[in-house]
Amino acid sequence: MAGRNFLFVPGPSNVPDRVLRAQVVSMEDHRSPKFPSLWEQIAPGLKKLFRTTTGTPFVFPSSGTGCWEAAVTNTLSPGDKVLASRFGQFSHLWIDMCTRLGLDVEVIDVEWGTGVPADQYAERLKADTGHQIKAVLACHNETATGVSSDIAAVRKALNDAKHPALLFVDTVSGLGSIDFRFDDWGVDMAVSGSQKGLMLPAGLGVLCASQKALELRTTAKMKRCYFDLGDMINANATGYFPYTPALSLFYGLIEALKVIEEEGLDNIIARHTYLAEGCRAAVQKGWGLQLCAKDPKWYSNTVSAVMVPEGFNGADVISRAYHRYNVSLGAGLSKVAGKLFRIGHLGDLNEVHLSAGIVGAEMAMLDVGIKVQPGSGIAAASEYWRNNEPPAGLLKRW
Amino acid sequence: MAGRNFLFVPGPSNVPDRVLRAQVVSMEDHRSPKFPSLWEQIAPGLKKLFRTTTGTPFVFPSSGTGCWEAAVTNTLSPGDKVLASRFGQFSHLWIDMCTRLGLDVEVIDVEWGTGVPADQYAERLKADTGHQIKAVLACHNETATGVSSDIAAVRKALNDAKHPALLFVDTVSGLGSIDFRFDDWGVDMAVSGSQKGLMLPAGLGVLCASQKALELRTTAKMKRCYFDLGDMINANATGYFPYTPALSLFYGLIEALKVIEEEGLDNIIARHTYLAEGCRAAVQKGWGLQLCAKDPKWYSNTVSAVMVPEGFNGADVISRAYHRYNVSLGAGLSKVAGKLFRIGHLGDLNEVHLSAGIVGAEMAMLDVGIKVQPGSGIAAASEYWRNNEPPAGLLKRW
Amino acid sequence: MAGRNFLFVPGPSNVPDRVLRAQVVSMEDHRSPKFPSLWEQIAPGLKKLFRTTTGTPFVFPSSGTGCWEAAVTNTLSPGDKVLASRFGQFSHLWIDMCTRLGLDVEVIDVEWGTGVPADQYAERLKADTGHQIKAVLACHNETATGVSSDIAAVRKALNDAKHPALLFVDTVSGLGSIDFRFDDWGVDMAVSGSQKGLMLPAGLGVLCASQKALELRTTAKMKRCYFDLGDMINANATGYFPYTPALSLFYGLIEALKVIEEEGLDNIIARHTYLAEGCRAAVQKGWGLQLCAKDPKWYSNTVSAVMVPEGFNGADVISRAYHRYNVSLGAGLSKVAGKLFRIGHLGDLNEVHLSAGIVGAEMAMLDVGIKVQPGSGIAAASEYWRNNEPPAGLLKRW
Amino acid sequence: MAGRNFLFVPGPSNVPDRVLRAQVVSMEDHRSPKFPSLWEQIAPGLKKLFRTTTGTPFVFPSSGTGCWEAAVTNTLSPGDKVLASRFGQFSHLWIDMCTRLGLDVEVIDVEWGTGVPADQYAERLKADTGHQIKAVLACHNETATGVSSDIAAVRKALNDAKHPALLFVDTVSGLGSIDFRFDDWGVDMAVSGSQKGLMLPAGLGVLCASQKALELRTTAKMKRCYFDLGDMINANATGYFPYTPALSLFYGLIEALKVIEEEGLDNIIARHTYLAEGCRAAVQKGWGLQLCAKDPKWYSNTVSAVMVPEGFNGADVISRAYHRYNVSLGAGLSKVAGKLFRIGHLGDLNEVHLSAGIVGAEMAMLDVGIKVQPGSGIAAASEYWRNNEPPAGLLKRW
Repeated sequence: MAGRNFLFVPGPSNVPDRVLRAQVVSMEDHRSPKFPSLWEQIAPGLKKLFRTTTGTPFVFPSSGTGCWEAAVTNTLSPGDKVLASRFGQFSHLWIDMCTRLGLDVEVIDVEWGTGVPADQYAERLKADTGHQIKAVLACHNETATGVSSDIAAVRKALNDAKHPALLFVDTVSGLGSIDFRFDDWGVDMAVSGSQKGLMLPAGLGVLCASQKALELRTTAKMKRCYFDLGDMINANATGYFPYTPALSLFYGLIEALKVIEEEGLDNIIARHTYLAEGCRAAVQKGWGLQLCAKDPKWYSNTVSAVMVPEGFNGADVISRAYHRYNVSLGAGLSKVAGKLFRIGHLGDLNEVHLSAGIVGAEMAMLDVGIKVQPGSGIAAASEYWRNNEPPAGLLKRW
Repeated sequence: MAGRNFLFVPGPSNVPDRVLRAQVVSMEDHRSPKFPSLWEQIAPGLKKLFRTTTGTPFVFPSSGTGCWEAAVTNTLSPGDKVLASRFGQFSHLWIDMCTRLGLDVEVIDVEWGTGVPADQYAERLKADTGHQIKAVLACHNETATGVSSDIAAVRKALNDAKHPALLFVDTVSGLGSIDFRFDDWGVDMAVSGSQKGLMLPAGLGVLCASQKALELRTTAKMKRCYFDLGDMINANATGYFPYTPALSLFYGLIEALKVIEEEGLDNIIARHTYLAEGCRAAVQKGWGLQLCAKDPKWYSNTVSAVMVPEGFNGADVISRAYHRYNVSLGAGLSKVAGKLFRIGHLGDLNEVHLSAGIVGAEMAMLDVGIKVQPGSGIAAASEYWRNNEPPAGLLKRW
Repeated sequence: MAGRNFLFVPGPSNVPDRVLRAQVVSMEDHRSPKFPSLWEQIAPGLKKLFRTTTGTPFVFPSSGTGCWEAAVTNTLSPGDKVLASRFGQFSHLWIDMCTRLGLDVEVIDVEWGTGVPADQYAERLKADTGHQIKAVLACHNETATGVSSDIAAVRKALNDAKHPALLFVDTVSGLGSIDFRFDDWGVDMAVSGSQKGLMLPAGLGVLCASQKALELRTTAKMKRCYFDLGDMINANATGYFPYTPALSLFYGLIEALKVIEEEGLDNIIARHTYLAEGCRAAVQKGWGLQLCAKDPKWYSNTVSAVMVPEGFNGADVISRAYHRYNVSLGAGLSKVAGKLFRIGHLGDLNEVHLSAGIVGAEMAMLDVGIKVQPGSGIAAASEYWRNNEPPAGLLKRW
Repeated sequence: MAGRNFLFVPGPSNVPDRVLRAQVVSMEDHRSPKFPSLWEQIAPGLKKLFRTTTGTPFVFPSSGTGCWEAAVTNTLSPGDKVLASRFGQFSHLWIDMCTRLGLDVEVIDVEWGTGVPADQYAERLKADTGHQIKAVLACHNETATGVSSDIAAVRKALNDAKHPALLFVDTVSGLGSIDFRFDDWGVDMAVSGSQKGLMLPAGLGVLCASQKALELRTTAKMKRCYFDLGDMINANATGYFPYTPALSLFYGLIEALKVIEEEGLDNIIARHTYLAEGCRAAVQKGWGLQLCAKDPKWYSNTVSAVMVPEGFNGADVISRAYHRYNVSLGAGLSKVAGKLFRIGHLGDLNEVHLSAGIVGAEMAMLDVGIKVQPGSGIAAASEYWRNNEPPAGLLKRW
């Protein structure tokens, strides 16, 4: 099929050319004297990305899902109670994993389109005077509904209740794109992956652990080996790994961290806000459609889930966009299947690139019969972008 | 700068991933027994691309400019008269080359925005009963003004006058994008380059020569060595080259020819028409602006030169698009400097990709004060694309 | 440092250019209609590689170590007894994993330099009339000592004892290089990784499971989620994956499987034998040194572990080779640390490439004071290669 | 065919991974404000490479052959006399070009295996009191015979005769590998290409011109356009080019110049000497064969041309090495066809890499019946390398 595919799923995101290029490497001995220089370049960059000076970053040959497993198995024991909330497919899946791994998960189900119910967490934690709850799970950015949650509020709930439970955060589609503060928010385990804000192919799970979390390794009874942090800590101490690391992705990661350093994390976050605002202008002002996120406070700056009008199927829009315009949109998953389509706007992106996605979605909607005004998406988005201060990362230096 | 650069100059065009990838090769011996297999894959593909069974294709490590030189020096003698027309920077430059190389160029200057004046050629050729004119030059696609010319009409002028002059065609920005027919049009030398319809980086000059043209090598007195076709013919006969060929580009060329074969040349041409129509709808119906091309018969399907309204400078639009939106538009050159900007729409492109260029140009125009309706470009272009049959190359097979 | 690094560790192995190139891909939606075409290209190739028609292949974003975990956790329950033997660092590590995951491992320690003690297995299995042993572990190719084991003999021991235990085989450094027969040998779980015979970067764990093994999923009580085969089976059934797959490595894997198909698995195995014989000639006839493998029946065709003479440290040879000649040799691990160095000869390799490793090792040995005859390694290896029929894969077709 | 091809032709040379990688770039506008930054990175690096502060470097999309043409056509007029010497295929071809372009070439034929006859040049220049000779041609490194010439001696001959003729030097296979001193030697035009010491794919011609040479542009009557230095100077002045430059090669060139800068030109030259000495030890001491170069003063450090014994055909060795061992050796050309084979040892190379070529050549010789002692090549080469101080570029920094 002629022409590029335009990728607007909320991950994997587009890989910048220089990161693509960096992965074209010959293999090398992962036990060589030179090898530790890789980790020396990676670890500090990851710490900056997590905004931590006290946490310890880890990289696994895995997806982000693997790091969910690492987070719980290295800190908890079978039957331990954890508190979690469900409001989308990815918050659901982590809960499902915990259950399958033998934890006792107390689930607070809230409406899809909202996020972590910090007030309900606060109540529950206050009530748990016996500290039965060993960990609290929070999904920073629910990719399925385009909802971001207030992790600082969860920390506050823990603090207010003087509750010692660990705080586990899934920031797979948040890290490196929207504000994430490991230290400020007192996060104990933060989980991410390579294929979102890190702008790499999938294949690396990324984890950050607090000192408190790491100390629990000795008492945590859940079985683990591949994802054992102890093995990782011992090997990483000298820059090596307990098993063969994914070398080409490591080189990509080093370059991606340079890209991030050059733009600046604050600028990147500002850029994601700015681009997301343009996209939301297209959806709401241009097309007159609703987002799945119920309230601006839940709006995600990495993905917009667009509700299709009654009588239409989001899957038809996605199919049309894909087959006819070579645009990949995200599908509605589980409860919201068919009810929405998603436009990912994370990673290496600028206004006109995102415009291609908006145009593709608009044409696909029109083709399946959704009455939006042709050109209205771009009219609204471009007005936003033109009339607002662009983030530093979008200003050319030449 | 975050986000991809969106390239809408009329060449170099975007390199498809698979063509990019194909160039990642280790070096090899250009005198090895295997080496001829490369040319065996290239030559037939080039012949199909030129639509010739009788012509001989050549590839030089050079730009298209080098093949202009090859075309004239291998067939003509110092002082020979050639007939040419000038209506843009590139038709000008070939004339300039001929003059500098010692030919007697009879130039017909016509208005920029029109193309080869076939009727004036016809008159002139009829009048040249002594056959002083040894060659006729025609620019198939004037990249500077977005004008395509009718080469068949030039052939007809030659035939009607029973004139033996050679027909030289510059199809640098036409070949592989708009209809070109070496055999049907009786072309004697057709010149192109790698960085346009062939979707490669620049670095290869591509030439096709008729049998008649090649026979003149023995009598042509113009000095040549690097671009000597005799050396090339001798070496190519066994699949080799008179000097070290540009190996990585050769591998890219082989892949590009496969891409072309898979889409089908007719489909590619139809796709360029379809995309160009959408772009022209944006310019004319959406923005209410004029093209440099004076009449639909001159409209180029590889590049649209957009006249900016009085009081504005096209260079400002281009600069704004580049610095603020990371969109590369083509500049007005020479006579039309400042009066226009150009949107290239050739090579590996689809609707939403081109939309990014339209959006970028629109935002840049608005930013410099040109009053166009926000969203109007996309409104018009998308209406065209949605309401017309897409070419086969834009229909996904999955 | 000028010049290439020459990599002779027994994995990662050298990535062929075409496989390197194949990984230069833009990201795509792993839920697109096209995506299943990837798995459709991968699964049949893996089945051929495992020589199975009845087994089910799996690919995880992990190292081979992860697939060790997948093999046991999907089939066994806590406290289950498994029978294993230890004769090198990698057979040790799998045993260690089993223990840590809560299995009751009965370990037979045999001399390093020998392999799986099939006779002792036979005895033990016959004695286990109550079928307490649920699985038998066998390391097909012990990378640490350069020892290959007779897996067919283990199957025979199971059959002779009419024992229903599962047969788990670690063929990380065997698959795709030395003969491996999933169906013929009645293997139940075979574990491998991408960075050895598959000639890819590390990052993919590869597993093959028998129907019998898969049926145990429902009764196996070991906790698992990331490595759960049920999730994989459900998703793979339609060509998808339970979490984001490692796309660039997938494209590399598809190409690697084509490379293997083109050479032919039998030819590849013959080539590994042929190259290994040359290497062993260098070690034994040329240098007069011993291999760690105690007997020809244990000789590995993917790696030769060379014992350094008394009074010398293998680490010095390795360090010298690395720092002075840019040659990466494998180190002695654990029990054999310092006593040997290893020359990996697996994957995409030919005679002269391996010669570079032999020359590097020879120069390094001489530099640290080991008295070998200069040139003797190549004299012996090249005599072997010149006087024996080369495998088809080393005969050029041009 | 399994395993890498080992390339030992004297160009193209092996492309380092990082240079290969650097060429994986998207296309960009060659008239953008950013574009001049490329030339700003290239020009100073080329000047250092030519060891000039007064010369002006040029890069053409061409082979080195094109720059031969640029050198003469920009400085001379038809019928001008030039003095040249012939002792190999490449010195021959430049002479042939000059003749075909209409110059009056006075050729001194000397024995193949010797180089520029500086003494005969001196005589001839002294005798030319009328200064009819406008330029003197010298081939710095005759790739066909493995002969380097003393360019300083040619300059001395010119100076001693107080002769104003221009000094043109072909250093295609010398630059960046063996000592070349544009300023010290008073060179007026130095010609090279991308695929030798610059470690790039072929496709760029590289030229350096003295101020004196450039001033002749206005009076030089030879016709030129593609290779006109005036156009280049005008465009380069602001960092642009008169026609579309070969972008991917430019990015490769920038990286190659960094590689050169990092190793250091003196170190590179020392490394070429050191590797060449090892190769010559293999040929002379190991195999007991002769080089084509008649005397040590002619020995080239980039290529060794090895005479095969009477009764054997060098082409058979080459064919055997290629088909059986995947080693590409250089052929004997023209007068020396069949009499020799060539081992190129230039560019990104180290001891063990070159060893692979020596082993391949040795096995091929043995296979065709040439009686050399197996292993003797490596014995001699490795003894040289082990017993001599390695150049800094071969010492690993880790």
